[in-house]
Amino acid sequence: MTKVGIVGATAYTSLELIKILLRHPESEISYLGTRRMAGTKISEIFPVLTKIFEMPCSPLGEGKVPGDVDLVFMALPPTVSMQFVPQFLDAGIKVVDLSADYRFAEKSVYERWYKVKHTDPSHLKAAVYGLPELFRDKIETASLVANPGCYPTAAILGLAPLIKRDLIDTDDIIIDAKSGISGSGRTPTEATHYCERNENLEAYNVGVHRHTPEIESIVSLMGNSDPFVYFTPHLIPMIRGLLCSIYVQLKKEISNEEIRDLFNNLYGGEPFVRLSRDGTFPKTKDVTNTNMCEIAVKVVGKRVLIFSSIDNLMKGASGQAVQNMNIMCGHNETMGLI
Amino acid sequence: MTKVGIVGATAYTSLELIKILLRHPESEISYLGTRRMAGTKISEIFPVLTKIFEMPCSPLGEGKVPGDVDLVFMALPPTVSMQFVPQFLDAGIKVVDLSADYRFAEKSVYERWYKVKHTDPSHLKAAVYGLPELFRDKIETASLVANPGCYPTAAILGLAPLIKRDLIDTDDIIIDAKSGISGSGRTPTEATHYCERNENLEAYNVGVHRHTPEIESIVSLMGNSDPFVYFTPHLIPMIRGLLCSIYVQLKKEISNEEIRDLFNNLYGGEPFVRLSRDGTFPKTKDVTNTNMCEIAVKVVGKRVLIFSSIDNLMKGASGQAVQNMNIMCGHNETMGLI
Amino acid sequence: MTKVGIVGATAYTSLELIKILLRHPESEISYLGTRRMAGTKISEIFPVLTKIFEMPCSPLGEGKVPGDVDLVFMALPPTVSMQFVPQFLDAGIKVVDLSADYRFAEKSVYERWYKVKHTDPSHLKAAVYGLPELFRDKIETASLVANPGCYPTAAILGLAPLIKRDLIDTDDIIIDAKSGISGSGRTPTEATHYCERNENLEAYNVGVHRHTPEIESIVSLMGNSDPFVYFTPHLIPMIRGLLCSIYVQLKKEISNEEIRDLFNNLYGGEPFVRLSRDGTFPKTKDVTNTNMCEIAVKVVGKRVLIFSSIDNLMKGASGQAVQNMNIMCGHNETMGLI
Amino acid sequence: MTKVGIVGATAYTSLELIKILLRHPESEISYLGTRRMAGTKISEIFPVLTKIFEMPCSPLGEGKVPGDVDLVFMALPPTVSMQFVPQFLDAGIKVVDLSADYRFAEKSVYERWYKVKHTDPSHLKAAVYGLPELFRDKIETASLVANPGCYPTAAILGLAPLIKRDLIDTDDIIIDAKSGISGSGRTPTEATHYCERNENLEAYNVGVHRHTPEIESIVSLMGNSDPFVYFTPHLIPMIRGLLCSIYVQLKKEISNEEIRDLFNNLYGGEPFVRLSRDGTFPKTKDVTNTNMCEIAVKVVGKRVLIFSSIDNLMKGASGQAVQNMNIMCGHNETMGLI
Repeated sequence: MTKVGIVGATAYTSLELIKILLRHPESEISYLGTRRMAGTKISEIFPVLTKIFEMPCSPLGEGKVPGDVDLVFMALPPTVSMQFVPQFLDAGIKVVDLSADYRFAEKSVYERWYKVKHTDPSHLKAAVYGLPELFRDKIETASLVANPGCYPTAAILGLAPLIKRDLIDTDDIIIDAKSGISGSGRTPTEATHYCERNENLEAYNVGVHRHTPEIESIVSLMGNSDPFVYFTPHLIPMIRGLLCSIYVQLKKEISNEEIRDLFNNLYGGEPFVRLSRDGTFPKTKDVTNTNMCEIAVKVVGKRVLIFSSIDNLMKGASGQAVQNMNIMCGHNETMGLI
Repeated sequence: MTKVGIVGATAYTSLELIKILLRHPESEISYLGTRRMAGTKISEIFPVLTKIFEMPCSPLGEGKVPGDVDLVFMALPPTVSMQFVPQFLDAGIKVVDLSADYRFAEKSVYERWYKVKHTDPSHLKAAVYGLPELFRDKIETASLVANPGCYPTAAILGLAPLIKRDLIDTDDIIIDAKSGISGSGRTPTEATHYCERNENLEAYNVGVHRHTPEIESIVSLMGNSDPFVYFTPHLIPMIRGLLCSIYVQLKKEISNEEIRDLFNNLYGGEPFVRLSRDGTFPKTKDVTNTNMCEIAVKVVGKRVLIFSSIDNLMKGASGQAVQNMNIMCGHNETMGLI
Repeated sequence: MTKVGIVGATAYTSLELIKILLRHPESEISYLGTRRMAGTKISEIFPVLTKIFEMPCSPLGEGKVPGDVDLVFMALPPTVSMQFVPQFLDAGIKVVDLSADYRFAEKSVYERWYKVKHTDPSHLKAAVYGLPELFRDKIETASLVANPGCYPTAAILGLAPLIKRDLIDTDDIIIDAKSGISGSGRTPTEATHYCERNENLEAYNVGVHRHTPEIESIVSLMGNSDPFVYFTPHLIPMIRGLLCSIYVQLKKEISNEEIRDLFNNLYGGEPFVRLSRDGTFPKTKDVTNTNMCEIAVKVVGKRVLIFSSIDNLMKGASGQAVQNMNIMCGHNETMGLI
Repeated sequence: MTKVGIVGATAYTSLELIKILLRHPESEISYLGTRRMAGTKISEIFPVLTKIFEMPCSPLGEGKVPGDVDLVFMALPPTVSMQFVPQFLDAGIKVVDLSADYRFAEKSVYERWYKVKHTDPSHLKAAVYGLPELFRDKIETASLVANPGCYPTAAILGLAPLIKRDLIDTDDIIIDAKSGISGSGRTPTEATHYCERNENLEAYNVGVHRHTPEIESIVSLMGNSDPFVYFTPHLIPMIRGLLCSIYVQLKKEISNEEIRDLFNNLYGGEPFVRLSRDGTFPKTKDVTNTNMCEIAVKVVGKRVLIFSSIDNLMKGASGQAVQNMNIMCGHNETMGLI
């Protein structure tokens, strides 16, 4: 039985973690840490948990490390997370960090894009990027896993089979991404107002979204190149769901069938990646509330088009976090996730 | 040509007013007053107006009355509106007030429900309730019209034919009301967050919504009784549209046909009220972006059920406000509204 | 381990059944019966199941009873279900029927509202109405359980505490009900077209919805009266979720607190019924994807208002069906449902 | 006063045409032609028109040309339209055809993509592509205007300033397009079912959408090249609105400012094209229910990204059709459209 803590318990991703863990037969939630809501029952923050899970939240602070926890999920915002991660690691607690604070091999890239000094460079170096389909071996023995961003998860899973075989130009990767609104978090702003979002669609953070260097960083790891990613996210009027439509240039002619074979070879044994049936393309609805990534590929002209879809709160955040926990703690990798 | 001002120019209802007035051949907007955004162009507040209508907003304040205006629409919140209405009236400008500040014949009722002292009781007495189908004559000669609330507009138009003939018990009027989210205004709150509102439905302000006394007050005017209204509004995951489902007890047996005749007699000549085709019930979509109120009636058991539907921003606010302006200023009543 | 069959496997409710049963540790799906899609894998019908559950569907027909099944869920339309239920019962298989075919104690009421002759009157008599909170004892030993309709589930759970104590007039029960579109089933029609349903709201089947006699029938069982229910359903632009807003007349004065106590007494020990926190009202979102029914009560004037909310596909259909299976087969009642 | 007919009166685009024309001071609808609903009042087909515009539909057929019509809008499906267009032209009636039947200079391209023989090649040759911003002069004197497709309108307006100056590689134009569901028409199918479309997102017709050759054909006209367009449309869970996110390769370095100047020069005087404010990107909501196309451009790396947004039923269909009528009949080009 893995004893689990959740830090930053009021985020949407924390609610998802709780829902998954309540179904997980070999773990139990023993700690909910929060900066501002200590003493409040989690069911008052998320009434959906009333009569189901009513644990009170504990204060989060320097030196306040829970005694009886094997692993914590950190659901704090980037730049805040790294203030608290060290004390958990130092107490021998494994960490899955859902923020961006430990995702970059290069400290300088993090600092350039997040505009703060990284305060925990030693753990940064030791952290493993928690995309199990690519880094399962390292995750098994890691004590700190950086859970990938939602867009990078879908994008990298869509690109990996082609990059590993060096089939595409990595300096001209075009990712037109679309996400539901829950990706914007719980804070009410004009941008999350129902009347602004519903029946509306727009691109945002064009050319400056922080998931760009995260994708480039992993592409670089896979391909030993200096990649350039044109990454453009769009806000879609739906709560959950994420689709990356990816346009890449082929280095040589290759057929649809060969590419499908490539993907099937890499992902055939994966429980959480599947190819769309031939001739069809992923619907986000078909991965909503699941930890699945569904991918379709199609050669058009000199390019291959890749469509990669996940639930941004599941495979894009909390589902993948539990998948990582399962690997780190020796549970069946799909436990609690199907 | 009527010269028009809009005060409180940043509200959703102001955008609707502008859109309507841009199509109105015998009026022109000559003033936009705002408490906080003076100097800003209205097209920066509502980008939809870019290249269409880009007038800058003027400051609103004591003594700051525009010189060249015949009528102002007041789109300020209740309790704020009555601070500014007197200075416009005193300058000889007609006023259509979209707030609740001048809707109540009884000052004490206003003060009990809005929890402030009424600071302009003299104009309150002179104000006319701007429901043209019931009070057209008075509106024609009024200088201050209190534009009705959205729920009261739909509810009262649904009830009026029955109450005028004394056919129902007015002490047991049950109004189950449903509204789109734009009725909640533009302020971002947890309650207007897309992820909270979409795929969600709830009752709110049960038994305490301020439109209850407004409906009771007009029912009382029509029926010389002491009415009791059970009014329960619900938030519906859509931007615009409002439906009142009304359940009232018949004093004596009466057929569907007789009731339809009653409604047809009262509303047959009205440009903005229609009955649903026999056997059908109003869809809010069929009145969206129009100034129409669609009503259906059906006798069931000892009760008659009434369904009354409007666009909360049009017949429920800005459309009706322009209808009132047309009546007050001698334009064709439907001008700009079809 | 309970071996389970699902008949009518292509309905939305069947997909929900499958999702629940995949998480249920003491049951397994061993049969999927369908009238028209035999041979097709269920994952082709519901791509969301690809790589998760890909069982082929079996033909459904006279005499075609699967050998190795302990209990079947019947997800066929009303009037069709009763053609197949007898052959399963005769083979010693327990049945939870999600259609209306076995919900009425009075055959004549069924025949009047469903406009067909009931072809299986003997089993009709033996069937138990599957609302565990009221009929748990009978369900335990039943071989045929009629799973309640979605609206009746919410309505009856909201009314039961008051009717059992004889506190309200049962001849004037007003139920203003609202449901997401999944309640309309999977068949594409003008009425389920996205552009007709989104940003739209309407009442339907006013005074003639078939859940009216179902509610009246159970109210009658509880209260020994001749009830009259004004039941008006509305279509809400959301996929899942159902709210009944109920207005009933009190026989005598009673306080909010007393009524809350009454509800707490009856439902305090129930795993799937909860009261809203005092002063709040149920949001359908807070029961979506759960088997919970959330209820709030408030006395206003001479009436008590009750708000009762469920997920129409869960507590209103498939969740409750599994709850019934758990009771019938001796599993923990909440198994697979939290 | 232009006397107008609408053929194929039951389409969504026809409802939009009617709404616009009711506000148009110098035209009147004198004919509604339909293949299947002759005799029915248009207000029964679109109840939103009840009490506003209740003209009965006339039969459409060989030789059945209305006597008193100056211009007809054809809102029939492609391949059907060209069966009826000749008889109107032959009777001296101007035609704006909203189908694809007259959009292609090359008959063979039409026949390859629409998989039928073109039955009216002579008029095809004379037809003018109705994009006023590019072909205003020809439209002025045309008797047959082919109203552009929704996607091509947004795409071409976004590309034109760059192609005219030969600034981009036209053999690598990537258009990731997103559209609301009304683009799929009124026929109820599984693909337009509310529960399939809401909270869902998907690419469709990848590499095979018929708007691909339409865009290529106009790009070719502007640039004298042999263009290749990667066009991928996506279905977005909203009723109206369309965004093309376009990624093209620059032939030489050029700054954001220079590109904005280019667009401002071409479109500064256009009433229905505007650039987003600097640093912002178009929201479809800001063009909904208007005839505006809003465009933003941003240089990223070696590419320029273009975002072009319209209301698919307005500038993408009926609004542009009326704009064309205004030009063809000598009305002010914006009449009825603001």
